[in-house]
Amino acid sequence: MFSLTVRRHFMIAHSLPREAFGPAQSLHGATFVAEVSFRRRKLNEDAIVLDIGAAGTMIEKVLAGLNYRNLDEHPDFAGKLSTTEALAEYIAQSVAAKLKDDPDGGQLTGIDVTLRENPDAWATYTLDLPAA
Amino acid sequence: MFSLTVRRHFMIAHSLPREAFGPAQSLHGATFVAEVSFRRRKLNEDAIVLDIGAAGTMIEKVLAGLNYRNLDEHPDFAGKLSTTEALAEYIAQSVAAKLKDDPDGGQLTGIDVTLRENPDAWATYTLDLPAA
Amino acid sequence: MFSLTVRRHFMIAHSLPREAFGPAQSLHGATFVAEVSFRRRKLNEDAIVLDIGAAGTMIEKVLAGLNYRNLDEHPDFAGKLSTTEALAEYIAQSVAAKLKDDPDGGQLTGIDVTLRENPDAWATYTLDLPAA
Amino acid sequence: MFSLTVRRHFMIAHSLPREAFGPAQSLHGATFVAEVSFRRRKLNEDAIVLDIGAAGTMIEKVLAGLNYRNLDEHPDFAGKLSTTEALAEYIAQSVAAKLKDDPDGGQLTGIDVTLRENPDAWATYTLDLPAA
Amino acid sequence: MFSLTVRRHFMIAHSLPREAFGPAQSLHGATFVAEVSFRRRKLNEDAIVLDIGAAGTMIEKVLAGLNYRNLDEHPDFAGKLSTTEALAEYIAQSVAAKLKDDPDGGQLTGIDVTLRENPDAWATYTLDLPAA
Amino acid sequence: MFSLTVRRHFMIAHSLPREAFGPAQSLHGATFVAEVSFRRRKLNEDAIVLDIGAAGTMIEKVLAGLNYRNLDEHPDFAGKLSTTEALAEYIAQSVAAKLKDDPDGGQLTGIDVTLRENPDAWATYTLDLPAA
Repeated sequence: MFSLTVRRHFMIAHSLPREAFGPAQSLHGATFVAEVSFRRRKLNEDAIVLDIGAAGTMIEKVLAGLNYRNLDEHPDFAGKLSTTEALAEYIAQSVAAKLKDDPDGGQLTGIDVTLRENPDAWATYTLDLPAA
Repeated sequence: MFSLTVRRHFMIAHSLPREAFGPAQSLHGATFVAEVSFRRRKLNEDAIVLDIGAAGTMIEKVLAGLNYRNLDEHPDFAGKLSTTEALAEYIAQSVAAKLKDDPDGGQLTGIDVTLRENPDAWATYTLDLPAA
Repeated sequence: MFSLTVRRHFMIAHSLPREAFGPAQSLHGATFVAEVSFRRRKLNEDAIVLDIGAAGTMIEKVLAGLNYRNLDEHPDFAGKLSTTEALAEYIAQSVAAKLKDDPDGGQLTGIDVTLRENPDAWATYTLDLPAA
Repeated sequence: MFSLTVRRHFMIAHSLPREAFGPAQSLHGATFVAEVSFRRRKLNEDAIVLDIGAAGTMIEKVLAGLNYRNLDEHPDFAGKLSTTEALAEYIAQSVAAKLKDDPDGGQLTGIDVTLRENPDAWATYTLDLPAA
Repeated sequence: MFSLTVRRHFMIAHSLPREAFGPAQSLHGATFVAEVSFRRRKLNEDAIVLDIGAAGTMIEKVLAGLNYRNLDEHPDFAGKLSTTEALAEYIAQSVAAKLKDDPDGGQLTGIDVTLRENPDAWATYTLDLPAA
Repeated sequence: MFSLTVRRHFMIAHSLPREAFGPAQSLHGATFVAEVSFRRRKLNEDAIVLDIGAAGTMIEKVLAGLNYRNLDEHPDFAGKLSTTEALAEYIAQSVAAKLKDDPDGGQLTGIDVTLRENPDAWATYTLDLPAA
């Protein structure tokens, strides 16, 4: 099994208004470093998982919708908690939706998103695609 | 599938008294950086794998039993080799035991512990929990 | 010359309301990783620059005043821009003020604060102390 | 499940002469950082996955065949594209072949090779061994 | 004293045809990670060293002249050795030349370029500017 | 000004038997990652600070005297505290002594040693050489 990972980052404000989050209930923010992995059983004719430039563009388009935003006012998180785990799932699903336009998209078996919120904490969401 | 990872470190002395370990047979030491991951299929009502503060506390309690110790004289390693691999398993099992007191503990499907002993070497132990 | 560096992080929301900041004019946030270095010509009787536990406590006290806050509403930044550079200076000056209570404080010749805002950008402020 | 990972690097020139690779069609190069993981269900009598010194030697022998080379003229890549993904597979297969001489080789269930080509991109090849 | 650092990378082929370089005499390559620091005594009116977007653009323009190239055929290195040290100086001088068009350029006191060629080796060139 | 940095690591046991060190008074250990920088005003005829292979060998010889040792029983630390700061100075002085046999040694203006003891703490010793 092969995977290709591309890394990008984005910077947001948000609050986590549940008692469980203690001081993170107040408005604060984060730099999230996103590592997005694309999985595939066999490489394509160019000996790659997918075009790394196309992968980077897909990820950047998804992250551009989050970057420099206050997620408390973001329509996609209305009534939802923008935890690191939830953001990882959101990014994986959003990138998966963009894969439909990629010539290699149908061959991919999964997308994994690791979101690092600080040097000591990160979360991962693993999404299996139909080809899996 | 989701996972949350929390990183902490501890510093110990030990020896590895078997011929296979060459110079590491003598008393030396290590800074171990522990990355402890908790796996879960679906997030809880707070959109998290488990409380990150609780996770950190569990890990710190386990590592406090090792930190600033000579493992050659540690009762839990009497007659055992404290290799990186064995320490990773020990930490995973010890954290798993503490999970029983956590409200989300029963939903977790696994714990993975990666122990980095230097920039060029690390070991991982993967523990599947009953909910897996 | 010796230096001792201690690393901590904090997570804040803020905006940078000047045309020069482009999309960062809107409310967003950051995880700042702070590396605080203490400089000294000769070590003390314990062969250290200063007590690393005391250093960590001083830094944590300073960062606790920033962590999980919206800096746009922080009194210390009223009418000021909370750029990475300005925050580095603020932290260095705040730690320097706390040094007055440290037995080794009078021997230190400087404090350097590097603030990493994402994997590709960071700023440093270098503060020379009276002993320099 | 246990794994042991050993990290090494090598530096090569190559070109990727297919339209898909854009500017990487021209002769350029890379520092590849290789993280080679060995997987095993149970540890051996020395409480390790395999001898870390032996693992390092096996990896170094494989990488010595690539290091400081122009892969466009390397016989093992004649008529093949030396993409990061293809190199990861090549290294995994080459290390697996060397495992036959290792006393623990028959117990290993897999080899994973992650090749980092720059801070923002890497690829992984996962090889399951007969013992899996 | 303040500094702002921006990080980018580039990938090149080259050879170092002098006996001193041993195996690096043959054509090989490298991923160079460049950390370019801009120094200044006092911040500008926007509380920054210089516009980080402008800094990134200057660096990218300089690195675009090197990226995906064989430095053995690069006119700027004709008859010269493209060692890590020499490349760091070249980048610092090239960025300094571009600073003349930046509104903050005249206030900068120096540029430092650190070039990382692999996890275990890097070089730095320190350039003092006229304002120093 | 130029510098070349080479990174290596070593693993030791030691204790710090003074009240100031709290739990570190007991026998424990550390992985120390050493970054040794060599400074020079102008490059040599090969456009380098010094031969990187020779630099690595010098550092390895110095660290071989520490690696896999209990510093409490090391003759060079008899009656001395092996703090991170003291070890950094020891390594810088030991490497400086070896420079006398290097053809470029007389041109070097300084040696800086940064010793990382864990992800959150490190110390640096700066040694100016006669050519400075």
